[in-house]
Amino acid sequence: MRPSGRQPDELRKIALTCHYTKHAEGSVLVEFGDTRVICTASIEDRVPPFLKGKGGGWITAEYGMLPRATHERTGREAAKGKQAGRTMEIQRLIGRSLRAALDLEALGERTVTIDCDVIQADGGTRTASITGGFVALSLAVRHLLKQRRLKVNPIHGQIASVSVGIYKGAPVLDLDYKEDCEAETDMNVVMNDAGAYIEVQGTAEGHAFRREELDAMLVLAGKGIGELLAHQREALEQSKLG
Amino acid sequence: MRPSGRQPDELRKIALTCHYTKHAEGSVLVEFGDTRVICTASIEDRVPPFLKGKGGGWITAEYGMLPRATHERTGREAAKGKQAGRTMEIQRLIGRSLRAALDLEALGERTVTIDCDVIQADGGTRTASITGGFVALSLAVRHLLKQRRLKVNPIHGQIASVSVGIYKGAPVLDLDYKEDCEAETDMNVVMNDAGAYIEVQGTAEGHAFRREELDAMLVLAGKGIGELLAHQREALEQSKLG
Amino acid sequence: MRPSGRQPDELRKIALTCHYTKHAEGSVLVEFGDTRVICTASIEDRVPPFLKGKGGGWITAEYGMLPRATHERTGREAAKGKQAGRTMEIQRLIGRSLRAALDLEALGERTVTIDCDVIQADGGTRTASITGGFVALSLAVRHLLKQRRLKVNPIHGQIASVSVGIYKGAPVLDLDYKEDCEAETDMNVVMNDAGAYIEVQGTAEGHAFRREELDAMLVLAGKGIGELLAHQREALEQSKLG
Amino acid sequence: MRPSGRQPDELRKIALTCHYTKHAEGSVLVEFGDTRVICTASIEDRVPPFLKGKGGGWITAEYGMLPRATHERTGREAAKGKQAGRTMEIQRLIGRSLRAALDLEALGERTVTIDCDVIQADGGTRTASITGGFVALSLAVRHLLKQRRLKVNPIHGQIASVSVGIYKGAPVLDLDYKEDCEAETDMNVVMNDAGAYIEVQGTAEGHAFRREELDAMLVLAGKGIGELLAHQREALEQSKLG
Amino acid sequence: MRPSGRQPDELRKIALTCHYTKHAEGSVLVEFGDTRVICTASIEDRVPPFLKGKGGGWITAEYGMLPRATHERTGREAAKGKQAGRTMEIQRLIGRSLRAALDLEALGERTVTIDCDVIQADGGTRTASITGGFVALSLAVRHLLKQRRLKVNPIHGQIASVSVGIYKGAPVLDLDYKEDCEAETDMNVVMNDAGAYIEVQGTAEGHAFRREELDAMLVLAGKGIGELLAHQREALEQSKLG
Amino acid sequence: MRPSGRQPDELRKIALTCHYTKHAEGSVLVEFGDTRVICTASIEDRVPPFLKGKGGGWITAEYGMLPRATHERTGREAAKGKQAGRTMEIQRLIGRSLRAALDLEALGERTVTIDCDVIQADGGTRTASITGGFVALSLAVRHLLKQRRLKVNPIHGQIASVSVGIYKGAPVLDLDYKEDCEAETDMNVVMNDAGAYIEVQGTAEGHAFRREELDAMLVLAGKGIGELLAHQREALEQSKLG
Repeated sequence: MRPSGRQPDELRKIALTCHYTKHAEGSVLVEFGDTRVICTASIEDRVPPFLKGKGGGWITAEYGMLPRATHERTGREAAKGKQAGRTMEIQRLIGRSLRAALDLEALGERTVTIDCDVIQADGGTRTASITGGFVALSLAVRHLLKQRRLKVNPIHGQIASVSVGIYKGAPVLDLDYKEDCEAETDMNVVMNDAGAYIEVQGTAEGHAFRREELDAMLVLAGKGIGELLAHQREALEQSKLG
Repeated sequence: MRPSGRQPDELRKIALTCHYTKHAEGSVLVEFGDTRVICTASIEDRVPPFLKGKGGGWITAEYGMLPRATHERTGREAAKGKQAGRTMEIQRLIGRSLRAALDLEALGERTVTIDCDVIQADGGTRTASITGGFVALSLAVRHLLKQRRLKVNPIHGQIASVSVGIYKGAPVLDLDYKEDCEAETDMNVVMNDAGAYIEVQGTAEGHAFRREELDAMLVLAGKGIGELLAHQREALEQSKLG
Repeated sequence: MRPSGRQPDELRKIALTCHYTKHAEGSVLVEFGDTRVICTASIEDRVPPFLKGKGGGWITAEYGMLPRATHERTGREAAKGKQAGRTMEIQRLIGRSLRAALDLEALGERTVTIDCDVIQADGGTRTASITGGFVALSLAVRHLLKQRRLKVNPIHGQIASVSVGIYKGAPVLDLDYKEDCEAETDMNVVMNDAGAYIEVQGTAEGHAFRREELDAMLVLAGKGIGELLAHQREALEQSKLG
Repeated sequence: MRPSGRQPDELRKIALTCHYTKHAEGSVLVEFGDTRVICTASIEDRVPPFLKGKGGGWITAEYGMLPRATHERTGREAAKGKQAGRTMEIQRLIGRSLRAALDLEALGERTVTIDCDVIQADGGTRTASITGGFVALSLAVRHLLKQRRLKVNPIHGQIASVSVGIYKGAPVLDLDYKEDCEAETDMNVVMNDAGAYIEVQGTAEGHAFRREELDAMLVLAGKGIGELLAHQREALEQSKLG
Repeated sequence: MRPSGRQPDELRKIALTCHYTKHAEGSVLVEFGDTRVICTASIEDRVPPFLKGKGGGWITAEYGMLPRATHERTGREAAKGKQAGRTMEIQRLIGRSLRAALDLEALGERTVTIDCDVIQADGGTRTASITGGFVALSLAVRHLLKQRRLKVNPIHGQIASVSVGIYKGAPVLDLDYKEDCEAETDMNVVMNDAGAYIEVQGTAEGHAFRREELDAMLVLAGKGIGELLAHQREALEQSKLG
Repeated sequence: MRPSGRQPDELRKIALTCHYTKHAEGSVLVEFGDTRVICTASIEDRVPPFLKGKGGGWITAEYGMLPRATHERTGREAAKGKQAGRTMEIQRLIGRSLRAALDLEALGERTVTIDCDVIQADGGTRTASITGGFVALSLAVRHLLKQRRLKVNPIHGQIASVSVGIYKGAPVLDLDYKEDCEAETDMNVVMNDAGAYIEVQGTAEGHAFRREELDAMLVLAGKGIGELLAHQREALEQSKLG
């Protein structure tokens, strides 16, 4: 029995609200149940030093949590003067994942920065960030196409992410905070719309996981990501009309 | 003529959405037009070292902006490793202002941290933060009273804040970003419900302001704060019912 | 009765010693009673990035205190690795105030940095810094004119600053440390020689202040600034002869 | 054809030199071909704040590279004043993996810090660090048992780690730097001696990887880890005699 | 010929102004010609962690320069967020030297912090700091004796410091900035009143120095330090009367 | 009697292993008994800003210790976010010493960075670093000559360094950790092959040292450095053949 009463293969309620803020070239509020993340995509016409003069572009991500997005207040990283290792790990994962969705050459000498800021945390903030980050990126690219600053869409695949885990001995999809705390294994999976893997990160929290458990989790992840890809397509379609 | 078409003494549309996030003891989304700030109040049963063993409590504030709350993306302070002078100045102002609303002795050995995070900026983020911060503080105190961790309400006054300025030669109330950029003088005023001043911070941006301009701005501020105090009372009343 | 025996509208003994150190283009030791601040103005023929190629100049200020300028030793900011919020707030105020005294266009592509270092603190260090900073700036501009690196004096107004407050219920001018600690309200005022305001920063320390108290304080500030402007003129005149 | 001429399922030459430095409770030089890492285990009789008074112990890891361990000199993190995201990610992985090898309750109120310092890098520094880190940890635990500070061995499983990847379309084991640069997919696997997984981290560098590629890589990883576990046992056995 | 016209064995004009600031337990303005340093000694009734409960005391030193103490403005270390290597090196030298003047056991569980802040630099700031620092320390100890917080004077020797060097081929005493820039060798010597050495730090700037040059510099240093010790005694004697 | 049983004028066992790591242009493992330091020399075709366009080159040094190079684990400087004063002092000494061995003009617009990383510490790490650093520098210069990027050898002198001290009242050469802890005086000497001094840094740890003690230590240092210079020449000769 899951604390939320969900079926093992059931996602939380997913919502993607496009154009959530007005200044960013792309912005979306992504909700996986009570987990809420604002994702914005910002375009700048310059690239980091290591790419200068090579013609291609870059996508990078930054991740943050409001201090009281969590049960207990977490100290503000800006006040502490440095980002935690967890923050760095997550923003590297988001950036790497989104770069896999796009032809950086075709983007031109531009940097797209994806900011993922967690307003409220209830487990799965990194998978929500990747899933929402893809939508923000798509909206920003659409903006460039509309302005004719890009002629060809550089996005060559759709990507989304979900967590899976072993909770009380059984594989479950899209863990919330309560499940996450007690899960024996926690795995974050990023996949594209061709059903291939971009990232697979499985961690044994309690005891090591066996091959058959890994297989069962991958099956759940595939199902969940299929549904998330559909949510993304629908939100992007809706936002054209709105 | 103001860019927004407002009258000189007209506030932007004000909205205060209580219980905006679920973990904080008090939380509110405050909107002054397109300026949107999430204010949360977090209670901890300890005080800073300089207050230890003295029986009284403390209120402190932290302020932040999402990187893309602004027209151009602003670098994340957590990534830069330090808070800007502007951030420090604002959070000191918010903390000082809210401490004036409450009897710190009566709060007991507790710290309330008010986090003000700007989701979208369009001028007046510090006055919105103070106005919303008071509501978050009130909700957190109500929470302590309900839990019987406090017997007497330590809040002895209601406070709110608004900006006034000289725009194209005329005094105006509650400047938005466009006005703020061109204003000759910008003044932030914090007042209580007895009509007295907590903070008055006037700055000549273009040319120095004369005494009669100061007087005219103070009149506008008084009117605006009266309306904001009413908005706060209504939101706090509504949230009891909800 | 003021601890110092001064009248309510009486400044402390003011002294301005020009050319206090030999390397800076402008330097002065400013004394407001026992408060002593070294102000230097340093000229560099470059501007910050946001002004590059625009033809105009910039004035910026930095503020510091020797660790034992205070009653108790204060940790050195250089050793802590960051400047306190109070320091940032003060140096922003000094810079903003001095920029209002000068036509930045007419300064040319130069930066003048005003360093205000408190040797001994006894209240009012920020107002002494602004008052002394103006003298250091004037000496540096005189130096540029003498060297014919400037043809026209870009200073278009004289500015000075003083604190006022409500001490034991009565408005007083130029608070020393003892008064500052107990004052119910503390206000820093920056004015020019046309009697107009550059900055007005009033803070209720104990209880909120009423409009008539604000008015009384502004009258005292006007009187004190008139005297400070005279001290500045005299010091600048003397330093020509010396 | 691999650049080194190795078979797809062939590890590089593995060497584990126990007691490599004299001060640490456990120390080993681990070599995976030209990759050389010094791993030390340091015991302290205290635990981090979040574990105080709970009776259990902690294992944490830190990772570093000598500036010229790499082809081009990398700036020293101590001089830059912060650790890179990559460093943080790796040391979190090492710590998490080693904690899975040991009963933290049985360790008592102690912290074991595993320092992994890369003397020379040629790909696979994190997997070498985990594999060597386990040996250093085992030596430190043996030291505690010999000193009778521990009565029961808290290590309940043996762990090792290896990388696998898709290089020129084929799955290969234990990638060196040349392969790593060109690999389409790179996966780090940590397993225990029961054949179960502690960590699986697969990343698509070029294009997304398919399920059958994932399966083939896991088979290679299992084989490699089996051999590494044998190397560890032999080194630990030898070090008893020496 | 020395730029200043001094004899090779001639000190600059030395001045020691005791009680230069009012808050510190000991304070002095030390001048070696145009080099001016404020030295203060601050007493705190606690010791650093490594001395806790051992009964003895500690002396530590901090060193700083006002940004415009130098020909060109030097960036403020507090603004940069870290102290330069040169600063660290100097303050370690001052602390080490002064600890040699005093019986730390006899000081009791106290820390004396010597702050040396350079108001104007013209060469020899570290030797002036040590020479002035000893006077500030003596004044602070006298203060403790007068308050009967100490019964026995813990100072067991008098110390002073001077620089010597090889300038245009000849050994000279107490180099000023012009000489320092061109000197082939620069040596800082700290001695006590028994004619023994506390520190000898010689550095070849241009070419390596020979044994006979070292000997000649040591003779000059001995003479200079004899004179500085007399200046210190006189200043301390005077300050008793004043 | 020395703890190690050595004669007062006897060095520890010295070893210099050239080409210790494969990526650096010059690398050596230097051992002074149990003190082991990896020294690498890295060449970059650019110079620091203050040398740009002046035609000459630069040599700089960085120094670090593995956390468990010492008896007790020392916190990692990269994790603390800053280098200790001791580290800065040592790396400045190494850089200054090595710059004295070479004609920087003749080096051309290049920077050589000498990294000295202590693998195991047993006293004398800075003298071992300078002695090994010279060998690494020589190997890097040989590499430039072989590649014909330099036509003339810019090294004009050979340098080495050793410590001397007063241990139990007697002068001794090359102190190990045990001696260092108890020594009354500790002196580090850097000399060249012409028998002249580059650096002399003597510190009284216990009581001040007399002139005759200084003289005796300098004699020992001269003897030790003569032997170290021979070790360096032999290692450099061997490495040509190997």
